[in-house]
Amino acid sequence: MQSGSVHTVKAFDEDLNQLRAVISQMGGLAEHAIRESMRCLTQRDLEGALQVVEDDNKLDALEVEAERRIVQLIALRAPMADDLREAVAALKIVGVVERIGDYAKNIAKRVPSLEQAATVEPVSLLPEMARITAEMVHDVLDAYVQRDATKAQSVCERDRAVDDFYNSIFRALLTFMMEDPHSITHATHLLFVAKNLERIGDHATNIAEMVYFAATGDRMGERQKGLDPVTVQ
Amino acid sequence: MQSGSVHTVKAFDEDLNQLRAVISQMGGLAEHAIRESMRCLTQRDLEGALQVVEDDNKLDALEVEAERRIVQLIALRAPMADDLREAVAALKIVGVVERIGDYAKNIAKRVPSLEQAATVEPVSLLPEMARITAEMVHDVLDAYVQRDATKAQSVCERDRAVDDFYNSIFRALLTFMMEDPHSITHATHLLFVAKNLERIGDHATNIAEMVYFAATGDRMGERQKGLDPVTVQ
Repeated sequence: MQSGSVHTVKAFDEDLNQLRAVISQMGGLAEHAIRESMRCLTQRDLEGALQVVEDDNKLDALEVEAERRIVQLIALRAPMADDLREAVAALKIVGVVERIGDYAKNIAKRVPSLEQAATVEPVSLLPEMARITAEMVHDVLDAYVQRDATKAQSVCERDRAVDDFYNSIFRALLTFMMEDPHSITHATHLLFVAKNLERIGDHATNIAEMVYFAATGDRMGERQKGLDPVTVQ
Repeated sequence: MQSGSVHTVKAFDEDLNQLRAVISQMGGLAEHAIRESMRCLTQRDLEGALQVVEDDNKLDALEVEAERRIVQLIALRAPMADDLREAVAALKIVGVVERIGDYAKNIAKRVPSLEQAATVEPVSLLPEMARITAEMVHDVLDAYVQRDATKAQSVCERDRAVDDFYNSIFRALLTFMMEDPHSITHATHLLFVAKNLERIGDHATNIAEMVYFAATGDRMGERQKGLDPVTVQ
């Protein structure tokens, strides 16, 4: 009976590791999509942008696979307590990573609308903002795989920088639009690009909070969860 | 043995019904938040807007309760196959309803920034857009409770109208900004309000797709899932 139990535990852990590998792969795709969509935006690479949009299908397919694995894991291994919570957390994380991919795809979709744009000054802040959010996505999935609460917390801390970037870009774009009404259409697209990156930061933070909770049993504060007052304007 | 099995099934159904009641309650709060945030926006009701922001805590608390029930349901009833899928779908729906509440809260948070705004023409389209999205949220949760695939499909169909509203408002606000650069700050806030409503429509559609899948076993098309190309600009 004991060996049977050990066997079950081992099987659960093996399933979970495979699941983590799929989620990690999803994170890699999402991270790549952020970096690549920003590269395409700054280099006006229309074909590359189209590729980012297409590649999002891979992320969607992996989401379906991850969900299938989680349902199977629960059905076959009947995990209890912490293990069940872990499976449920995985399900939520999978959904959030898929949404991060959607935001990156949305940035890529704006590239054609920005092809004719003259260089808009605040664009210079966007790549750095994208770099930080891509790093957050990378690190939060590392934190998830390693169950590293400290790393998860550091991801949340960086969300403040992302919010600061967003506020700077928001103000800069508004000033730009007022000075040159011809820039309004392009600037508006850039505003949404900045907003997408800001949302990616929020989503990475949401995952970090789940990782933190799973690792410590405590909840982090609500400050950086979702729609932060700091970024309303 | 058979009566034991019937007993378990009944217990599962009872748990599920209680869970559905909680989710339905969440939907009611989200729907109210959409209507109320828009009322506050049009009537410049700062106190009301603050209340919407505060009330979002109730939605968050219900999300935690719903999740607890779902984990308990899985742990105690060990549902298989369709029942397990149903529990997993409930978990996803709970997360989406919470996000819808966040978007409504975000609209309410913009009310103070719009207090001084002169009447901006496209605002006249926003209440109607909000009305449709609130109705979609209402109907999709009805569809969920009643497992009504037809009603779920009708929710998806209405998302096209929401996207059309968004595109009209987007263009109107851009024109407005070009004609009167002083309106840029306010118009930008309204642009984000419109975007929030458009996202609520997408989220209601996502739930509708899950309800449809649960009821029919078939997946609806991808057209209205998440970031629709129609609404990129």
